[in-house]
Amino acid sequence: MIRFARVNRLEAVLSGDVRVAARLMRDADDRRPEAFEVLCALHAHTGRARIVGVTGNPGSGKSTLVDRIVAHHRAAGRRVGVVCVDPSSPYTGGAILGDRIRMQRHATDPGVFIRSLATRGHLGGLSRSCIDVARILDAMGFEEILIETVGVGQDEVEVTRAAQTTVVVTAPGLGDEIQAIKAGILEAADVFCVNKADRDGADAAVRDLEMMLALANEPVYGGAHSAHHAPGALDVAAAVDRADTTAWRPPIVKTVASRGEGTGALLEAVEAHGTFLAGGDGLRRAHRRAREEILARIREALMAEATSELSGGIDRAVERIVARQTDPYSEADRLVASLLAG
Amino acid sequence: MIRFARVNRLEAVLSGDVRVAARLMRDADDRRPEAFEVLCALHAHTGRARIVGVTGNPGSGKSTLVDRIVAHHRAAGRRVGVVCVDPSSPYTGGAILGDRIRMQRHATDPGVFIRSLATRGHLGGLSRSCIDVARILDAMGFEEILIETVGVGQDEVEVTRAAQTTVVVTAPGLGDEIQAIKAGILEAADVFCVNKADRDGADAAVRDLEMMLALANEPVYGGAHSAHHAPGALDVAAAVDRADTTAWRPPIVKTVASRGEGTGALLEAVEAHGTFLAGGDGLRRAHRRAREEILARIREALMAEATSELSGGIDRAVERIVARQTDPYSEADRLVASLLAG
Repeated sequence: MIRFARVNRLEAVLSGDVRVAARLMRDADDRRPEAFEVLCALHAHTGRARIVGVTGNPGSGKSTLVDRIVAHHRAAGRRVGVVCVDPSSPYTGGAILGDRIRMQRHATDPGVFIRSLATRGHLGGLSRSCIDVARILDAMGFEEILIETVGVGQDEVEVTRAAQTTVVVTAPGLGDEIQAIKAGILEAADVFCVNKADRDGADAAVRDLEMMLALANEPVYGGAHSAHHAPGALDVAAAVDRADTTAWRPPIVKTVASRGEGTGALLEAVEAHGTFLAGGDGLRRAHRRAREEILARIREALMAEATSELSGGIDRAVERIVARQTDPYSEADRLVASLLAG
Repeated sequence: MIRFARVNRLEAVLSGDVRVAARLMRDADDRRPEAFEVLCALHAHTGRARIVGVTGNPGSGKSTLVDRIVAHHRAAGRRVGVVCVDPSSPYTGGAILGDRIRMQRHATDPGVFIRSLATRGHLGGLSRSCIDVARILDAMGFEEILIETVGVGQDEVEVTRAAQTTVVVTAPGLGDEIQAIKAGILEAADVFCVNKADRDGADAAVRDLEMMLALANEPVYGGAHSAHHAPGALDVAAAVDRADTTAWRPPIVKTVASRGEGTGALLEAVEAHGTFLAGGDGLRRAHRRAREEILARIREALMAEATSELSGGIDRAVERIVARQTDPYSEADRLVASLLAG
């Protein structure tokens, strides 16, 4: 019976059934076992879509830009899936923006599928949900998938790692501190977009980016940064990633999304990056994405096991740590050893 | 020999030796075993400092505000430790701002200890390092510890959870999207600060916050948010946390940090929150902090074990996932089962 339902759901998704797909996305987010089975079977049917991440500074006009990109693809007859990653309360789990106020004009277009995700209060979960939704959209036959994040930070970089091409959006006059944050996602960018380019300071913003790109292309290892470098699996991926910035230099495209200017040029830059990826780098990146995804899923499964198997031990450790009868370092060590010993 | 060194380092830190403490912070960040031993022993000597987190929108003037708070404490003869959490490249691990350009005027004051931390490219690690540094500063006898984060997001909220009191800083005219992000850390705030209050829109910013606080005090469970709520350990902590917002209503303080106005009022609000915590809520929060810290350390230790023990299996899984011979869901399950089976 369950297997019968799974086959039905899989086929419905593959044939583009929106209602079944939306239900599957919800079930995947809720980690229902039946969703898990469908996702397993779905993976073999993916890999056809182009997945583009759009991230950048608050106030840069990303949503308007994404709206324009959707319209551009639709005019060319391409079906578009949009994953909006909303800032949400880590306490209540509620999304702040939500689908409702987004891209109203595409809401009734059957060629556009919009799905919002909230951060839900636990690190790492967002990236996983994002990959699940993008995978479902891919299997449904959407040719273009956009992942839009609100804000810039570690989480947003993780999210855009699900994309083949990442567009980092900025705008003139967002302040010095924002410039600094931008530097934090510099290496994540495959294409830069200076939006609101009709404003004062647009050329200065382009020059800033060019300067940062020049600095970023200097050797990393053996330099001042090496002392900060920590060992670990993700750092290996990071080191590999650095290597390809010498082969692909992110172009900087100016847009005025509010007037629809520059969308074509931006998509040409994305297309050019796609051509670059097809030259061999795409496969290397696919390996990196698969590695990061499997590590994220291992992390999640291990923590589910730990919180379930160790819950009593954690409760007792917390009491003793607060009373300063023991310390969090030794207790964590002891609990992990007991879990791994079975 | 190692034990002898450990006792020496512990005593040096407890006596306030800055050089040994700075070395210990570096070693803790590099996860050296000898640092681990000292940190274990250190925990019993902590709990005296007041730890205040300062987070908020880019462009809100947090650094200037923190500089004023430091000066205020110094004028009253209190020693201050500052932990600056910098945006950093997740690829190179380098901090963007760094100690150098921060709070120059306090650099030669032996009553002030400033330490910058970079995000280092892995989720969760930042919060852990932050707690380690704050713990060392506490054991050194610093009465006031400030944790300043640049930017707002999930990471920043995690970081401020190490604090007893969290100040969320905003400023007039930072744009609608930033308002939305602010809502994401609304419940993390114990005190709100509207900085740059001499600018147009300061009163409007205060009114916005008051409105958001009024909305946040509406019932959460059974309402529109409940559908977004995921199960999991951190959500339990979140639910507990919501309960106390009914008992403590975050005050909103206006400051002009560039002119030093309002610092006293802000610190009075922090003090009032400290008094509230002493009424019983502080112990409950200490339990929550201890629980989150031990979960973070368990997560880190389990992933270290997984990446070491499963590295060959992960490599093979990645190859097969990219070739679509298998899927990441089944592979993660299988690898976790093999790790737990020993």
